[in-house]
Amino acid sequence: MFETAELGHTVDKAEYKDEIPKLREALLDAQFELGQKKPFPVILIVSGVNGAGKGETANTLNFWMDPRSIHSHAMGEASDEELDRPAMWKFWRRLPPRGTIGIFFGSWYSFPMREHIEGGKGQDYLDAYLDDFIRFERMLAEEGALILKFWLHLSKDNLKKRLKTLESKKETKWHVTKRDWEGVDLYDKMIPVAEHVLRRTSTAHAPWIVVEATDEKYRNLTVGRTLLKAIQGRLKDGGVKPLPLSVPVEALEHGDSRNLLASLDYTLELDKKEYAKQLELYQGRLSKLMRSPKFKDRSLICVFEGNDAAGKGGAIRRITAALDSRSYDIAPIAAPTDEEKVQPYLWRFWRKLPRTGHTTIFDRSWYGRVLVERVEGFCAKSDWLRAYGEINDFEESISRHGAIVCKFWLAITSEEQLARFNEREATGYKRFKLTDEDWRNRDKWDDYVRAVCDMVERTSSELAPWTLVEANSKYYARIKVLKTICERLEAQL
Amino acid sequence: MFETAELGHTVDKAEYKDEIPKLREALLDAQFELGQKKPFPVILIVSGVNGAGKGETANTLNFWMDPRSIHSHAMGEASDEELDRPAMWKFWRRLPPRGTIGIFFGSWYSFPMREHIEGGKGQDYLDAYLDDFIRFERMLAEEGALILKFWLHLSKDNLKKRLKTLESKKETKWHVTKRDWEGVDLYDKMIPVAEHVLRRTSTAHAPWIVVEATDEKYRNLTVGRTLLKAIQGRLKDGGVKPLPLSVPVEALEHGDSRNLLASLDYTLELDKKEYAKQLELYQGRLSKLMRSPKFKDRSLICVFEGNDAAGKGGAIRRITAALDSRSYDIAPIAAPTDEEKVQPYLWRFWRKLPRTGHTTIFDRSWYGRVLVERVEGFCAKSDWLRAYGEINDFEESISRHGAIVCKFWLAITSEEQLARFNEREATGYKRFKLTDEDWRNRDKWDDYVRAVCDMVERTSSELAPWTLVEANSKYYARIKVLKTICERLEAQL
Repeated sequence: MFETAELGHTVDKAEYKDEIPKLREALLDAQFELGQKKPFPVILIVSGVNGAGKGETANTLNFWMDPRSIHSHAMGEASDEELDRPAMWKFWRRLPPRGTIGIFFGSWYSFPMREHIEGGKGQDYLDAYLDDFIRFERMLAEEGALILKFWLHLSKDNLKKRLKTLESKKETKWHVTKRDWEGVDLYDKMIPVAEHVLRRTSTAHAPWIVVEATDEKYRNLTVGRTLLKAIQGRLKDGGVKPLPLSVPVEALEHGDSRNLLASLDYTLELDKKEYAKQLELYQGRLSKLMRSPKFKDRSLICVFEGNDAAGKGGAIRRITAALDSRSYDIAPIAAPTDEEKVQPYLWRFWRKLPRTGHTTIFDRSWYGRVLVERVEGFCAKSDWLRAYGEINDFEESISRHGAIVCKFWLAITSEEQLARFNEREATGYKRFKLTDEDWRNRDKWDDYVRAVCDMVERTSSELAPWTLVEANSKYYARIKVLKTICERLEAQL
Repeated sequence: MFETAELGHTVDKAEYKDEIPKLREALLDAQFELGQKKPFPVILIVSGVNGAGKGETANTLNFWMDPRSIHSHAMGEASDEELDRPAMWKFWRRLPPRGTIGIFFGSWYSFPMREHIEGGKGQDYLDAYLDDFIRFERMLAEEGALILKFWLHLSKDNLKKRLKTLESKKETKWHVTKRDWEGVDLYDKMIPVAEHVLRRTSTAHAPWIVVEATDEKYRNLTVGRTLLKAIQGRLKDGGVKPLPLSVPVEALEHGDSRNLLASLDYTLELDKKEYAKQLELYQGRLSKLMRSPKFKDRSLICVFEGNDAAGKGGAIRRITAALDSRSYDIAPIAAPTDEEKVQPYLWRFWRKLPRTGHTTIFDRSWYGRVLVERVEGFCAKSDWLRAYGEINDFEESISRHGAIVCKFWLAITSEEQLARFNEREATGYKRFKLTDEDWRNRDKWDDYVRAVCDMVERTSSELAPWTLVEANSKYYARIKVLKTICERLEAQL
């Protein structure tokens, strides 16, 4: 695999001097067009042999291009903030918005490769990460990203030569660290691993490009030209089209009207006295659980979805009443902000993940993709169909990191909703709660029923189960929510 | 995940009697159109709780439809033939051709799930299989297959009831085996595993469809209707389009003319006397290696690619001269047969894989996809781009099963090729070897150089390395090939 990168590719000084101004101009033009139209983000990974000039390559690109819309991320040790969240969080927060370029040197590949080469972790360990990365990059690509992964290669001899040359000059001596020489010792062990990783994770939508890095000029020119052609090509063909569907959606619909929502018992209720008693009981339990030392390494994520006027806000307030206000956040999810619109749709949820020991309550959530966006046709069929898998991956990674995920669908009957709408219209201080959109959504009741049932079927799991809450009685619903959270916490802590 | 399938879905007798004739007619129509146009194959997986009626469902579909183009495969114990080859071989050989329907009950999922649930294999073991299956199904989908995966679900209580009912009647008693009752004991252990598997492997192109199987009529009707809608929908939208490319191909081209083929030393040669001596030596070694008891559990797969007139045939004959004629096969790869054309492109190579202890020599190979098909534009860009990964997967699975894979590119210079073409034209008994196509290929020399270099870069690995053979001297080339095979075998046995 690395044979091509040991052929002694070079660029002579004169050619380099001649080419660079042309390449820079073209890159700046492409960058300008990218920034104007914002059709996609560009994600560059610069990996390779230690000492092959990853940092210099990133610096060169930064220098050549407009620094306002290209950003390099040297991923060193994780910060406290980052350690408190799933491993991919630190990459998510640095994803370039559409119209810009992000360069990662030391990417998601670094950690599991190092653990495998130096830390004694086995092949299975590495491969599990690689499969996660393939899914992650596929999601990015399907969200529109242009992904280029460079592997800068040096033969062992050339690596040694390079380190010696750097060491021999006073002004470059500081470049060479102990770690670089350790890299030489590990070289023979590293190469077959790198080969495996590149082979396994080189896909049509996120290919590895091996670049011989012996000659700096060749290396820089090749990376620059590849980047240029990739951006120009994608600008020309107008971005990503939705994937064609291989299974027609209609085929996945259920045949009869029997469904999870219809099977709930909406007459369940609780009288005021019993409610007050149980509220005190469960809020007390919850409060105690949150102060448990065991919760310090965990986090709690609650997701509230439900029919309009089903009482999400009221239920949420009964939870937060039991929490320390420094330890939780409520994330109300409305239309995405400008900043969120230029990122993959899961980005805005990643950024709101709680640190360990903390709680985030999502009032509406990532499930919007398979609910409102599906029903209203805000995204292509193929987009919401792939979302089930992406959401499962997302919840799996947050759960693996210790989050306890509770998801609630607050369900009321159509008649109950109508009564509540009418009441809201009639009551001054509640009128603001009712919008034209609520009435429009009501017209699509059956479409929502189908979307909710599919959602629960495809995303309820042991790790992150859905709880359907019969919410015609607000008292009953609030207690069921509190009780569910307490029981989940008790089981997990 | 299985909540939806415990709602007590039923279909009453009258409705069933009324619906079946209509459904059958529509299914037969769809099947007829599918068979006429042959736009895609249909792959049905029928999995689920033991005792939920997987076999009966398959039987029902067989009974409803035209049995000539629907085939059920109950995957029981592997045959000797199958045990001698990679695990997926038994599925590949049964893949339905385009225009037909294949039903697998007991699919690729069964074995690793059973090993995990009953055999004590861990989560990593299971997940590694699942990731292989995701790639496999994605490849099938991208090759055009319509894939539906049914999971027939029964609650534990209903499972017990069903077994008791069957046992209580003389005519159905034989249905119930000891294994079925073991399934009841394992039920609670199995369900979370099934949930994990379904969640992980339910993709937009190969979704799982959970069907409540308590009521046979509901089960049959749901499976039948889903199948109908899926085929009708796909017939209507005219099959699979090639995937959009997220990275433009031009960006992946190398910038300079330095390449692996240009870097070979074409002056390497061997005189006749030395050739004769070494030929004897290496054929002797090869013959001995093949008779090694250690080879009994392995197999040898040689791949020959190269420029036209580079001497592939001659090199192959020098290998087979050292082999027992009962132990090897030569597979010359020309245009696919009718039977092969209606299958995924790798199918015709899977079918030719040697049993353990045997050898297959491919004279041209699966690399046609990234060579001639790429250069001639016989397939879409996205098709040959994804092929690198698919080929790597393929070679990984055959290597893991014990195959020793040697891949040779026989390289001659353009001048040498011209001389050989001219000689062939002038020599009566060689004239048949030269076709107009050879001359046409020669005009695309540079395109082939690029394709070969990309191929080597993207598919040479420790498991299945490419050997570039300088073949201007036939003697030299033949010895290098023999020597390489001997050394690989010595290292592996």
